[in-house]
Amino acid sequence: MGRDPGERLIGSRTVFEGRLLSLRVDQVELPDGRRAEREVVVHPGAAAVVPVLSDGRVVLIRQYRHAAGALLWELPAGLLRPGEAPEDCARRELAEEIGLAPGELATLFSTYLSPGCSTELIHIFVARDLRPAGAPPEPDEQIEPAAMSLEEALALIRRGEVQNAAAICGLLAYARWPISH
Amino acid sequence: MGRDPGERLIGSRTVFEGRLLSLRVDQVELPDGRRAEREVVVHPGAAAVVPVLSDGRVVLIRQYRHAAGALLWELPAGLLRPGEAPEDCARRELAEEIGLAPGELATLFSTYLSPGCSTELIHIFVARDLRPAGAPPEPDEQIEPAAMSLEEALALIRRGEVQNAAAICGLLAYARWPISH
Repeated sequence: MGRDPGERLIGSRTVFEGRLLSLRVDQVELPDGRRAEREVVVHPGAAAVVPVLSDGRVVLIRQYRHAAGALLWELPAGLLRPGEAPEDCARRELAEEIGLAPGELATLFSTYLSPGCSTELIHIFVARDLRPAGAPPEPDEQIEPAAMSLEEALALIRRGEVQNAAAICGLLAYARWPISH
Repeated sequence: MGRDPGERLIGSRTVFEGRLLSLRVDQVELPDGRRAEREVVVHPGAAAVVPVLSDGRVVLIRQYRHAAGALLWELPAGLLRPGEAPEDCARRELAEEIGLAPGELATLFSTYLSPGCSTELIHIFVARDLRPAGAPPEPDEQIEPAAMSLEEALALIRRGEVQNAAAICGLLAYARWPISH
């Protein structure tokens, strides 16, 4: 009670500004008066969607990720554009990546992916009542959609074959709380 | 079949080297011959642990995260030291953060947290048969442990109050697969 849990910012310098990311080194004062340096990746944020088909199957995508050096199982997901609402980003990524538009888009939760060093917050949704989107998906041979039963998707997680944290969070949360989001 | 899903690295420059992170800008050639730039946060990797007490309660910690600007609910977790095995990191963080040593440490899975832009891979464990660790936890007023039932922890996730992806992954996976990891 009354204790300030925070860290007071006493200095900040931007050491890199890229197209996607920037990187800051912040000087902070801890509640006990000590000082520390914090390297902070500044990220625009993202949205990811668990797409649920009328037969109950979910749609995952298979995408090559350079930073991981591997093809990963993921949810349709993408970066927020400047000023874009997370829901709009979710709808855009669904259309671009799997060619579907949701009749219903429910929020699961929002979570930081690596809050020790990055501002990246991802907003995770469940999409249902899916119809073909007006525009066909962007041709991108890097993305392969695959529809599978929820049990199959969970088995992939259980075997360690889903190596994307947002996909694991979204699928396990949807499996636990399938309705009333 | 036979299609190379990868991206061929054709150039790389390190634009920042910090104490925790470094940042590379890589030039890659896509399978279709186009070229692209990839901003890559190079991260040492991490381990996180779901600590399960003999009465079934799990131990979470409450920690201030500068990058998020907030106190977050998390699992005991930390960065891999150079050459450190993930299991050793998990044991060290359990001792340092909550003062406990596991009789049993089982692997849940390893997952990339933000594979679109970061090499960070986190290894998630379940710890049981917990005893007091030899050394007391490091005094750190930034970390507050809290034991709660698994149902309470899941309710925090359900209400959007757990904003750390590794904690959500670990707790939901443990809730789904409580035994035989």
